[in-house]
Amino acid sequence: MVKKIPGGVTAVPGILASGMACGIKKRGKDLALIVSEPVATAAGVFTTNRLPAAPVILSKDQLKSGRAAAILVNSGNSNSFTGSGGLQDARKSVEMVASQLKIDPGAVLVASTGVIGQRLPMEKIRNGIPQLVERLSRHGGSDAADAILTTDTRRKVIAVEVEIDGKAVRIGGMAKGVAMLHPKMATMIAVLTTDATIDQGSLQGALSRSIEHSFNRVTVDGDTSTNDTVFCLANGVAGNQRLSVNHPDFAKFQGALDTVALFLAKELVRDGEGATKFIEITVRGAKESSHAKAVAMSIANSNLVKTAFFGEDPNWGRVIDAIGNAGVELSPESLSLSFGPYTLVENGNIAPGNWRSQVRRYLRRKHLNVTLELGLGKEEVTVWTSDLSYEYVRLNAEYTT
Amino acid sequence: MVKKIPGGVTAVPGILASGMACGIKKRGKDLALIVSEPVATAAGVFTTNRLPAAPVILSKDQLKSGRAAAILVNSGNSNSFTGSGGLQDARKSVEMVASQLKIDPGAVLVASTGVIGQRLPMEKIRNGIPQLVERLSRHGGSDAADAILTTDTRRKVIAVEVEIDGKAVRIGGMAKGVAMLHPKMATMIAVLTTDATIDQGSLQGALSRSIEHSFNRVTVDGDTSTNDTVFCLANGVAGNQRLSVNHPDFAKFQGALDTVALFLAKELVRDGEGATKFIEITVRGAKESSHAKAVAMSIANSNLVKTAFFGEDPNWGRVIDAIGNAGVELSPESLSLSFGPYTLVENGNIAPGNWRSQVRRYLRRKHLNVTLELGLGKEEVTVWTSDLSYEYVRLNAEYTT
Repeated sequence: MVKKIPGGVTAVPGILASGMACGIKKRGKDLALIVSEPVATAAGVFTTNRLPAAPVILSKDQLKSGRAAAILVNSGNSNSFTGSGGLQDARKSVEMVASQLKIDPGAVLVASTGVIGQRLPMEKIRNGIPQLVERLSRHGGSDAADAILTTDTRRKVIAVEVEIDGKAVRIGGMAKGVAMLHPKMATMIAVLTTDATIDQGSLQGALSRSIEHSFNRVTVDGDTSTNDTVFCLANGVAGNQRLSVNHPDFAKFQGALDTVALFLAKELVRDGEGATKFIEITVRGAKESSHAKAVAMSIANSNLVKTAFFGEDPNWGRVIDAIGNAGVELSPESLSLSFGPYTLVENGNIAPGNWRSQVRRYLRRKHLNVTLELGLGKEEVTVWTSDLSYEYVRLNAEYTT
Repeated sequence: MVKKIPGGVTAVPGILASGMACGIKKRGKDLALIVSEPVATAAGVFTTNRLPAAPVILSKDQLKSGRAAAILVNSGNSNSFTGSGGLQDARKSVEMVASQLKIDPGAVLVASTGVIGQRLPMEKIRNGIPQLVERLSRHGGSDAADAILTTDTRRKVIAVEVEIDGKAVRIGGMAKGVAMLHPKMATMIAVLTTDATIDQGSLQGALSRSIEHSFNRVTVDGDTSTNDTVFCLANGVAGNQRLSVNHPDFAKFQGALDTVALFLAKELVRDGEGATKFIEITVRGAKESSHAKAVAMSIANSNLVKTAFFGEDPNWGRVIDAIGNAGVELSPESLSLSFGPYTLVENGNIAPGNWRSQVRRYLRRKHLNVTLELGLGKEEVTVWTSDLSYEYVRLNAEYTT
């Protein structure tokens, strides 16, 4: 049983956090610090973009130790495509945090999000870090969650509790979206914390699995950013027996981590740039799970499908077109397609009856379900996306360098 | 020397055409007929979408003979995802045209474009065909070119003349765009005609090559339609010695065909839905041509890049992000990026100087050039795309079923 509890990353014992405005952005908080006492077992998953940002390169390297005590995240500048100078900036940030916290620099991770191709304003970060450290608190989760946002319209946090070995174990999380959102992962940064005791290999495995079923199944615009990062810190304060794949409660832990990751992933889509609809796309009856995902993502990333949903137009032919573009073998005669409770296509034939006006009414809802049966096998995948609105174009035409 | 001449498909001797409004669309011409006397050598290239429309399935089969005398094209209804009934409709259309023209039904090709998932209004087509045949004329190219349009804002035609064996050979063409535009090919239909004498294999080869360098290098929104079709008819009226790959003037013919296809492909982008910019993207210095194309298309299909161009914002970081998402091995230190004459990135470093305001001014132009040097090899590819505007969203949110 996974129980929701209030708060985010600091709902977990042993986790402190803070957030502040240090001046990287014109307005609002832009620097966050998350600290674990004691030093935590750490795992991370990073962007697949072939031009990863400096903080991604550095944090991947830092994570080789499998341990971390602090995570510094800034918004407003992604420290991406900034060459060796950018890598030095990331290293300096790590050293400043370590020196202020009096910990090993090898135990500090960093993440950045914002404009690409500009050097970090290091003077502002240097001035900010001591204040960030001073503000660290058990109640700092909200400030930290605010400080990682870019064009997000709201804070994204969650915390849950689950029983492991009869002990209460908490998992907290925070994330930011909201464009360049695509599998492998979004333009997104997420920090997950837990007081579970768990071995590093199992934590990395559990995190990767959770991400595959959450952040890798959401998309806003099909672009994968240079900075995508998810960190997970597990500090062992709960005192459970060390979790590993063989522990009888491992599935419970995995389930709780899945819940946290999936909630945050869906939040990214709900708050996707200009989103007016939250669209859940389920593809069933595929021969292989990878086929189901390819078809679902082809629908989810089609500008034509997304503008039709924005226009609340039952133009299901565009879904058919997107299905055909997934690069997967198909049998038109076995395809069935539904929007919510309404069947539009049944075994390759347009469904009888006058469903058009009902579907038009259904499309006025904010939460839409698209269900596709391929009729070729037993595999099923669900992904989530948003519509494509004027507001997406406005935000991205005006978001300035 | 390829010389431009007036007109489109009917600029070619032996080609007659007509176009009319038969009532498939609410407004405007929607049925076109192109006829070659004598029967022509014929070639075709079709969509890679795995749910091809009925006319695609039928025409592929018809083309096995390598000969055709007539092409019927309708707009307003794509006869796609219409099952065995749709295939029967396409066959009936072919029979009606053959019967009216008193030719072999095996020599009639068909293509359709428009809404997916609705049966063709066969009564209207049945009534239209005799009138279409009656109106066939050497001056019917414009009417035919108008009748294949959907949300296109203008007719797309071209004709050229080239000397082969001292004889004047003409190539004419017409096309329609304008969304679901993506390599392999656009939501597009094109008909090319020529009076060259050429063997079928060489014509098919020449057409495929032209398409690879034209229609397969343009994109508006990354969607490949169920109906993409390019036909080419060569009727031999020019009286040249039969062209084949070994003919000394074959390269001249190929060049002229390339010119026609490339002009029409660029016209599709210029008239892309909501397009306010025509963007030419050249990627140089790739190890392989396929890598250059993957990088160029990743930039060309990025919503974030396209909205930045619409906003006339020099947000080149989004180009960097798109480059990193092409799935191609890269070396950041050897990347150079220019917008028009302005170098933004040179060998991995942001170019010195205050070019930002100049680039901002440059981006106000309607025709933009993006040049990327990868510094990894010698291969080069150019592709063309449009920006992503409010008008694209409006057109596609309102285009109704």
